[in-house]
Amino acid sequence: MNTRLPYLLQPYNICHFKDSTFYIGNRKTYPNEKSFVECTSCKQIGDALRMMITQGGGPLQVALTAFRYIASEMDRKILPFSYNSLEKEILYIVNARVTNTTMKRCVYSVLDILRNRFIDPTFNTTDLIIEINKIIDDKESEFNEIYFNMGKLGSSLIKDNDTILTTCFAEHSFILSVYFAKESGKKVSVLVNETRPYFQGTRLTAPSLHELKIDVKIISDAMGSFFMQKNMISHYMSAADLVCMDGTVVNKIGTNQNAICAKYYNIPYTAFAMSPDPSKNTSEDIQMEYRDGSEILKYNDEYIGDKTITALYPAFDVVDNSLVTNIVTNKGIFKTNEIRGVFK
Amino acid sequence: MNTRLPYLLQPYNICHFKDSTFYIGNRKTYPNEKSFVECTSCKQIGDALRMMITQGGGPLQVALTAFRYIASEMDRKILPFSYNSLEKEILYIVNARVTNTTMKRCVYSVLDILRNRFIDPTFNTTDLIIEINKIIDDKESEFNEIYFNMGKLGSSLIKDNDTILTTCFAEHSFILSVYFAKESGKKVSVLVNETRPYFQGTRLTAPSLHELKIDVKIISDAMGSFFMQKNMISHYMSAADLVCMDGTVVNKIGTNQNAICAKYYNIPYTAFAMSPDPSKNTSEDIQMEYRDGSEILKYNDEYIGDKTITALYPAFDVVDNSLVTNIVTNKGIFKTNEIRGVFK
Repeated sequence: MNTRLPYLLQPYNICHFKDSTFYIGNRKTYPNEKSFVECTSCKQIGDALRMMITQGGGPLQVALTAFRYIASEMDRKILPFSYNSLEKEILYIVNARVTNTTMKRCVYSVLDILRNRFIDPTFNTTDLIIEINKIIDDKESEFNEIYFNMGKLGSSLIKDNDTILTTCFAEHSFILSVYFAKESGKKVSVLVNETRPYFQGTRLTAPSLHELKIDVKIISDAMGSFFMQKNMISHYMSAADLVCMDGTVVNKIGTNQNAICAKYYNIPYTAFAMSPDPSKNTSEDIQMEYRDGSEILKYNDEYIGDKTITALYPAFDVVDNSLVTNIVTNKGIFKTNEIRGVFK
Repeated sequence: MNTRLPYLLQPYNICHFKDSTFYIGNRKTYPNEKSFVECTSCKQIGDALRMMITQGGGPLQVALTAFRYIASEMDRKILPFSYNSLEKEILYIVNARVTNTTMKRCVYSVLDILRNRFIDPTFNTTDLIIEINKIIDDKESEFNEIYFNMGKLGSSLIKDNDTILTTCFAEHSFILSVYFAKESGKKVSVLVNETRPYFQGTRLTAPSLHELKIDVKIISDAMGSFFMQKNMISHYMSAADLVCMDGTVVNKIGTNQNAICAKYYNIPYTAFAMSPDPSKNTSEDIQMEYRDGSEILKYNDEYIGDKTITALYPAFDVVDNSLVTNIVTNKGIFKTNEIRGVFK
C-alpha cells in the first residue's frame, strides 16, 4: 500500500531507528525541511512526542517501532533485559500525551503478551527480538488493513463534486478516503484549516493531498463557516483522537466550532476513529490535555506579541454526539448511538 | 479623553504628518516595535491601508488627517490647488478597502462641504487650511464623543464577573466599554482570538487591554467554542465594519463562527457599529473584499509551508441578523429589527 501513501505517512518517514538512534520525522519543519529528530532513549522519544515532533497517528507508529528499538537496545546490552525495564521504557512513550488512548491500548495489549514470555527462564534477547518483530509485524499489517478499509469506507461517503472541509491532519483514513474517491472517478476538493499553532493543516494535510494530486486549498481556522454559508463546503471530515461509547468525539481544538457550524448549515460531519475506547462512556471520562499557553504566543520559537500576556491552549475539543453524522471505524460506518453496541 | 486611551488608540500613534511625510502607526509590528510607516503621497497612504499597516478604525483617522495633509501640500505647492486635485488625492485613501463604508461616507460629507467652497474664486490655500482644520476638528470631536458614548453604552451591557470573548481589534468602543465596566467596579475578563493572519488579537487588542490593567488572555481562532462549552465565556463582543439596515453585521473573518457558537451555547453577541449604512439594505448590497491568499500562507513575510499551494482569504464575515443580540451604535443600543427605523 505504501506506494499510494504521501511522504508523511510512509512508515520510514514517521520514524525508524539505526543502532541506538531513534529518528522521528519532524512534522514541525515539514514541508520546508524533510528532517528527523534524533533520540537516544525512550525518555527522549517521549519528550519529542510531548513537543509534537510527530502527532495525530504518528505516536502509534512510534510506539510500535519503539518496541523493536527496545528489544535491539536490550540485545546490545544498553538496556537491562527484563520485563520491568521494557515496561518502564515504553511507558515514557505511552504517557507523553494523555487524551488519545489508541496507542496506549495497543501498547498494553503488546505488553500483556510479552509479560507472559518473560516468565520463561530460558527467554533471551534473541527470542525477544523474534517475538517483538512478530507481534509488531502483525500489528502493522492489522493497522494497514484498518487504514485501507477506513479509506474505502470514507470514500463511500464522498459524493461526486464534494468539497470537504478538514482540520489538522486526519492521517491515513482521511487522506485515503479522498484518494480512493478521486481514483473512483469522483471530483473532490478539500479546504484545509491551517490549524494553529503548529499549522498541521498548512504543513501536513495540504502538502500530502497536493502530493496525491488532489485539489486542496488552505483557509485560516476562522473561515470554515464563511465557506459553509456560501454553499462551498458539502462535508466536514476530521480524525477523532478519541470516541466515547456515547459517540462523543474528541479531536484537535477547532473541530467543535466547525461541527457546530456544519450543523447550523445542515452539512454532515464525519469523524474517523480507528478504535472507539470502550473504557470511556461519556465526555466525563476524558482526560483533557492542556498544553503550555506560550505555544499560542509564538510562531516557531518567536514571540508574536507581548510575551508577558497569558495564553490558553486546550489541545482538544469535545464534540457532542448530536453534532456528529457518521463515525467511520475499523468495524464500519456508524451513527453515534450505535457505537456502544459495537465496541463495548 | 486621550489619557484613558491605550497607546494604539492615541491619535498621534494612529497617524500624523510633518511637512510632506505622512506617518502611519504600524500595527503589523506592534507591540514588538512602536514604528511608523512613512508615506509621501496619498497614493502611498492608500497602498499602506491596503497592506493593513493600520486597519479597523485606523483608516478613518487616516482619512481625516489626510485632509489636513492635502491642504498643507497644496499650501506648499506640492499638489495643485483645486477641488479635483483634492478629490483625486483623498479617493486613493477611500478606495483602499471596500467593505467598511464608515470612512467613505465621512469623506464624502467633507467633500460636499469643500466642493462648495472651491466655487468662490477668492478661496485660497490659507482659507482651505482654516476650513479643513475646522471641519476635521469638528469631526474628530464628534467621533470622540461617539466613542465615549458607545463605551458607556457597551459597559452597561457588561455584567459583574463577565468573561467576554472578542475577535480582532474592536477599537475604541469595545476597549472603552471594558474599561468603563472595570472603572465602575465590575469584575471583567477578556478572552481574545489571536486573529490570523495578522494577529490583531495578539498584537493589538491584548496589549491594549493589558495596558489598561484589564485581565486578558489570548486564545487561538479555533478555541472560542471550547470555552463557551465550559461556561467560561458569558458574552461575545466584536466591532462591526458594516451594519446593514436589516441588522446584518459584517466584521472580520472569524466573527460568524463565534456568533453561531454563541447562539448554540445561549451566549449573547453584541456588535459595535459607529454608523450603520443606510444605503445597505441586506447582505446582498455588501461589497466583499477578497485579499491575497498568500497572506494566509505566511507568517510575517515567511512562507509557513509549500508556497505553491493555493490559499483563500475573504477578509470579512457576514453575520445573519438572527445571530446578533445587540448592536451598540452612536444613537443607542438596538435590536437588529430596530436598525432600519433609526438609521434609514
